[in-house]
Amino acid sequence: AQAETTVQIYGIVDTGIQVQNKTAGSNDGRVSMNTSNLRQSVWGLRGSEDLGNGLKAFFNLESHIAVDTGGLFGDGQGESPLFRRQANVGLSGSWGSITLGRQYGPALLAHVATEPRAFKEQFSSLYTWAYNQLESINGGGANNTNDDVGIFMKNAIQYRGSYGPVTGGILYALGEQAGDTSANSILALGLTYTGPVTLSFSHEYMKDANTGEKVVEHTGLGAAVSLGDWAFKGNFHRSDNSAEDGSRVSKVDVLGLGVDWKWNPNNMVTVAYYDARDKENRSNHTKNLVIGNETYLSKRTTLYATLAVVDADTGATGTQALRTSIVNDASFRAGSTTSFFNFGIHHNF
Amino acid sequence: AQAETTVQIYGIVDTGIQVQNKTAGSNDGRVSMNTSNLRQSVWGLRGSEDLGNGLKAFFNLESHIAVDTGGLFGDGQGESPLFRRQANVGLSGSWGSITLGRQYGPALLAHVATEPRAFKEQFSSLYTWAYNQLESINGGGANNTNDDVGIFMKNAIQYRGSYGPVTGGILYALGEQAGDTSANSILALGLTYTGPVTLSFSHEYMKDANTGEKVVEHTGLGAAVSLGDWAFKGNFHRSDNSAEDGSRVSKVDVLGLGVDWKWNPNNMVTVAYYDARDKENRSNHTKNLVIGNETYLSKRTTLYATLAVVDADTGATGTQALRTSIVNDASFRAGSTTSFFNFGIHHNF
Amino acid sequence: AQAETTVQIYGIVDTGIQVQNKTAGSNDGRVSMNTSNLRQSVWGLRGSEDLGNGLKAFFNLESHIAVDTGGLFGDGQGESPLFRRQANVGLSGSWGSITLGRQYGPALLAHVATEPRAFKEQFSSLYTWAYNQLESINGGGANNTNDDVGIFMKNAIQYRGSYGPVTGGILYALGEQAGDTSANSILALGLTYTGPVTLSFSHEYMKDANTGEKVVEHTGLGAAVSLGDWAFKGNFHRSDNSAEDGSRVSKVDVLGLGVDWKWNPNNMVTVAYYDARDKENRSNHTKNLVIGNETYLSKRTTLYATLAVVDADTGATGTQALRTSIVNDASFRAGSTTSFFNFGIHHNF
Repeated sequence: AQAETTVQIYGIVDTGIQVQNKTAGSNDGRVSMNTSNLRQSVWGLRGSEDLGNGLKAFFNLESHIAVDTGGLFGDGQGESPLFRRQANVGLSGSWGSITLGRQYGPALLAHVATEPRAFKEQFSSLYTWAYNQLESINGGGANNTNDDVGIFMKNAIQYRGSYGPVTGGILYALGEQAGDTSANSILALGLTYTGPVTLSFSHEYMKDANTGEKVVEHTGLGAAVSLGDWAFKGNFHRSDNSAEDGSRVSKVDVLGLGVDWKWNPNNMVTVAYYDARDKENRSNHTKNLVIGNETYLSKRTTLYATLAVVDADTGATGTQALRTSIVNDASFRAGSTTSFFNFGIHHNF
Repeated sequence: AQAETTVQIYGIVDTGIQVQNKTAGSNDGRVSMNTSNLRQSVWGLRGSEDLGNGLKAFFNLESHIAVDTGGLFGDGQGESPLFRRQANVGLSGSWGSITLGRQYGPALLAHVATEPRAFKEQFSSLYTWAYNQLESINGGGANNTNDDVGIFMKNAIQYRGSYGPVTGGILYALGEQAGDTSANSILALGLTYTGPVTLSFSHEYMKDANTGEKVVEHTGLGAAVSLGDWAFKGNFHRSDNSAEDGSRVSKVDVLGLGVDWKWNPNNMVTVAYYDARDKENRSNHTKNLVIGNETYLSKRTTLYATLAVVDADTGATGTQALRTSIVNDASFRAGSTTSFFNFGIHHNF
Repeated sequence: AQAETTVQIYGIVDTGIQVQNKTAGSNDGRVSMNTSNLRQSVWGLRGSEDLGNGLKAFFNLESHIAVDTGGLFGDGQGESPLFRRQANVGLSGSWGSITLGRQYGPALLAHVATEPRAFKEQFSSLYTWAYNQLESINGGGANNTNDDVGIFMKNAIQYRGSYGPVTGGILYALGEQAGDTSANSILALGLTYTGPVTLSFSHEYMKDANTGEKVVEHTGLGAAVSLGDWAFKGNFHRSDNSAEDGSRVSKVDVLGLGVDWKWNPNNMVTVAYYDARDKENRSNHTKNLVIGNETYLSKRTTLYATLAVVDADTGATGTQALRTSIVNDASFRAGSTTSFFNFGIHHNF
């Protein structure tokens, strides 16, 4: 009985088969197993305790796992922490919540309702979001040890709250540098307005551990509107990356437009279009069309099938390709059009 | 209440003391703590969901742990995935089951009922099975990244089903190589007939990631019969290992014969004999006698004591010794007879 | 229902903010997030089974986690085992208990009731205990692979029992060396008398893996007495470290004196003083004053605030500073006085 009230075990297992007709740098196709297509595969522990007077204590520990290989996902910094996604504790009340530890930043969370594919783990702007905030991608020594792809933050404190139709959060990650409280810090903000339309806004920046320069600046804007079985969504984010000395490395704009159609109670089609370009490197540009269907076998189990067509310009190669990729491994061919088809199963517990 | 219906936590903790009178290359004995003697130590999460019409979704996540040191077991490829043994999701029905992800192959499973010691984690042909399919043991660059000692497979799809008295499965691990769907793939098959006698058959092969040559071919045959409190078992497996270019590296034949005697309701004695030889290296040959007793304190807790005598020929040294070893670390002395005694406790939860 | 009776999931998440006015080697201060201030952050699985006649089987698997970063804590030997703290199985009865596997040694456990701050994870003699038994800190090749900071032992067997007012345990870790059962072994003993006063005693030593010399010898003595809402405590431990050849490396004496005052039902103040010195290196000496308050929001959730003032002599620098440090990262300035203030939240599940 005690276990039920104090801790919940939960998770997601999602894996499928992916077929593509070309690969990076080659006209050869490939068939692979791909974990986490619809949503990230995880296992975790969470719970909360009622402290009286509306006050609650809560915690969350969450691993990011690969169901094809059994391993942990790495963070963007060469390590694979057991609880990469969540390792935190906090207090909540009518005033909102305060969370301490490793956690989701508020910026990405603000756009879940406006991103055309709700940041699905394959074929969405989750990857342009993440890879442009990947610590190691910046040249010139840029480095922020608290940043995990602009989504998860270490050593962080977050306030979240709701004011009328607006929900949001603000997060600060402690830089932990002697003599300089600013260096290595992160500030992140995300807001969502939910009314007849849904509007989202976010901004976050990461400062270099040595120089204190902003080596990542990231801003997002989105809107969505639902009409019966239809939902229309548009989302934009800009990533501005700099070297340790503050000189610009890249400036990537990503626009996504999409529509969901719940064409029967157990099925939803999503069509989305993404344009991603690095304004500092004009030939690094992709245009992407994604058509997917989800079939709900139950609330907990979904089958999915997705087609993605990636038209990549000649500069979208090597690590540059990561900046403009909506594909998890950027395995499309530059200067060509690559088609991907994947299908699989998603199960929550 | 939710936790009970959607996820089960389970595990095995098994550890004991092992005494041996010689060690590899020395007449010095050793006393050590040995995790996983009767069965592998694990912890895991599993669950299933009824989707209606006899269809079920299921998942399994399972770690392989060392109870003597607290760490994870490595795969055969230099890594220690959190969920080395199981990380998969699938669907099942009256037609059988389909499983996607990292999983047990069907070959070993086919022989659990016919292997003289049911592939116990110490002193059984589990090790000749595993070490002859250890990715790193092959010379000449042989490499299959999906193979974990011929028992666990990454990026795999398996169908399992029962047809009358025959139960079995067929697994295919996707090679994931561009331009060649065959390279790096695994095909594995296992069948068990259960009737007045139990018969088992398996075959599996792994193809090289570069050349596509079959660098491992492995075949097993077994039979068992129960007569009251007695069960007689015989099992044979052959491992054929090749270099990347297809030239043979080793050809190991392992024969095991044994008898179980449940001499009282809470005790079972097993006597087994194993002969393991590499036909490509005739002096790599062991003859092994194992006598063990299990005392069941409950359905979940067992005490065990096992004596193993290993008579190893002169070629059973170094990594060669792994090929013909029924001992987990091949720590017997070549050209001599080494005796092992271990005892310990096994507990399921 | 089964999950409830056979396995319990439990844990601690504890994190807070730490402000300090100086750092090692600098007058620059720092603000950081610090996991595990009051107690270690962990998650674990444990359970027991009634075997009848008063006999029980039990197991425990416990991870040591960092809530600020999501990762696992390392052992003192460059690895981060999944279950660093506990990975064991055993039997218990009216005669006591026998535990096999990785486990807490009995020495530290004996002093929990007499150490002035009950070995809190920040600002206590937990660190002088641990760092003077850190495998890697010894010069001259000293090495014991079973030792994890004198607290956790691998490959260990422990008997624990109670005789009247005396509770205690004795542990032996198997050296596992061929031809020498003594080399690499650990012997640890801890006893606590609980009466009008509480008295504690412990002794443990670790032998070198190569030479069999005692490279760590550690002895502790403590006493505590409770008077109403007050508890007075005194604890002493001596760590004697040697090189592989048996020549002395350091001899560290640590004295702690403290008082707990439960000044209202939901609050307790602790004031403690620690003196730590290396008699082999007289300038490596710290004097430490710690004042902390705990506020109990519930049985499971505590807020805390702690002030620590560290007066360190000139020799307390680099790895030497670890020997005389009650601060988890020894980040005080030698030849100066450093103040630390931390506050945070502690939650059990």
